[in-house]
Amino acid sequence: MTPAFEQLGLIGCGLMGGSFALALKRAGLVRRVVGYSKSPSTMERARKMGVIDVPASSALLAASRSDLILLAVPVAATEDTLDAIRRVLAHQALVMDVGSTKADVVAAARRVLRDDVGQFVPCHPIAGSEASGIEHASATLYDGAQVVLTPIERTLTAQLARATALWEALGCRVRVMSPAAHDAAFAAVSHLPHLLAFAYMNALAGQPDGAGHLTLAGAGFQDFSRIAGANPRMWCDIFTANRQEMLAQIGHFRQALQQLETLIADGDAPALEAAIAAASLARAQWQPAAAGTTSTA
Amino acid sequence: MTPAFEQLGLIGCGLMGGSFALALKRAGLVRRVVGYSKSPSTMERARKMGVIDVPASSALLAASRSDLILLAVPVAATEDTLDAIRRVLAHQALVMDVGSTKADVVAAARRVLRDDVGQFVPCHPIAGSEASGIEHASATLYDGAQVVLTPIERTLTAQLARATALWEALGCRVRVMSPAAHDAAFAAVSHLPHLLAFAYMNALAGQPDGAGHLTLAGAGFQDFSRIAGANPRMWCDIFTANRQEMLAQIGHFRQALQQLETLIADGDAPALEAAIAAASLARAQWQPAAAGTTSTA
Repeated sequence: MTPAFEQLGLIGCGLMGGSFALALKRAGLVRRVVGYSKSPSTMERARKMGVIDVPASSALLAASRSDLILLAVPVAATEDTLDAIRRVLAHQALVMDVGSTKADVVAAARRVLRDDVGQFVPCHPIAGSEASGIEHASATLYDGAQVVLTPIERTLTAQLARATALWEALGCRVRVMSPAAHDAAFAAVSHLPHLLAFAYMNALAGQPDGAGHLTLAGAGFQDFSRIAGANPRMWCDIFTANRQEMLAQIGHFRQALQQLETLIADGDAPALEAAIAAASLARAQWQPAAAGTTSTA
Repeated sequence: MTPAFEQLGLIGCGLMGGSFALALKRAGLVRRVVGYSKSPSTMERARKMGVIDVPASSALLAASRSDLILLAVPVAATEDTLDAIRRVLAHQALVMDVGSTKADVVAAARRVLRDDVGQFVPCHPIAGSEASGIEHASATLYDGAQVVLTPIERTLTAQLARATALWEALGCRVRVMSPAAHDAAFAAVSHLPHLLAFAYMNALAGQPDGAGHLTLAGAGFQDFSRIAGANPRMWCDIFTANRQEMLAQIGHFRQALQQLETLIADGDAPALEAAIAAASLARAQWQPAAAGTTSTA
């Protein structure tokens, strides 16, 4: 059987990119992986782990002669990365990313790729964890995950179909939506929880007795705050890229918190219990879309 | 070997109480468990599960002739429960509770037990989960858990020593602190996270597109919001009982959130990344005190 792709040009060798290369290899979908990371030691580690076959000394060299290119870099680095590779893009090459925000990524692709923007299919696989780095890469990271594709009007139908088939071949379920709808939804279900977890840890650490309090924390704390351990650079980028939606979600949250606070301050137990019951019910009714994944993105 | 206790009078047959009885039996520390629940079907289920040996038709009958009495009821029911049993308390009986707040429990015990308050050792085992009810009871719930004891000046040394030995015999690690210090710490590491999770779910459910957004939620959401599925009555009681500390913690949190919001709104990426990095570091430095438990309380 001929692999679907001759060469994956992997730009960024972290958890997301490394896991993608491993999954692609496991599925027999690629003959060779040429990888680039700005960190030589990361590249060497990726080579030793079998994530990449050939290290490249630049993003341009990783993209060159690749029929599949994956950008797995912080979203803020998307524009520079696309700019670095655009002159060597093969005419038929499929270019994808794995960024957690999409409106900014699409805007960057429009600006930089211009007439070639149709080859770029913006992707967001709902997988990952608070862990980052090539050392956590796994061929199973995307198993059963949802992947959101956010094509624009200029995206080529053929490339969208190839991207869809590729993710499905990796065991993912593909959803298509607009970049704006994507960013609104993820502000609500991913970005805001991360922000709240960060704010919570800062509130705790900033108290005189915070360190002592923390010695009493149990598994509720552990799960609630797990995402606060996520990568600061990556999340700074995401919040910045998705600024308007973040501010809107913070507004929704502040109102809901204010409601509960007022009920506690007023000692209105029946209304407080009803408000908690509504939250508890909403949570109980939620079902994970992708059982078995360790998605956080 | 003679069991340490002849008869456990278990008042409240939920997750915490049921698990305590099972653990006590597993450790061979009790000859007989007499249990009371206000729900006859719960009591019958507890009997069938082997949690209790003898159902009692009232709290008073469960406490009568028991040399160990465990109150495992919502904290707001503590005073009425103690009032119901105080006339039948054996002189040597050890009375404990498992409530998540302690200042209110201690105040209730002082009011009701009066000269017998020395027999009461206020306890808070850091165990439990968002699940509740006898059907989730397990002999292993308290394995390796921390248990906070909050004696007052009138607590009898002998009863404090018995309670300590008992929890240690169940595989727990005992810490002693004042009721006020307990409530301040748990407002920070347990009660506030629950409140934030409830507020978050209400904020999400209250949005026009909330239901659609939820179909995209991944494991980050799943862990962050898990505690929002907790029992509304129980948490209404806890927030109400620990009102002052809750309001103080909400204040700390609001400040921390405001800081991040301002940095996002201002587009101050370096300061935003530094603030996130502080949170991420604080979380990374935290170690669970009790590996292997499923504590949330």
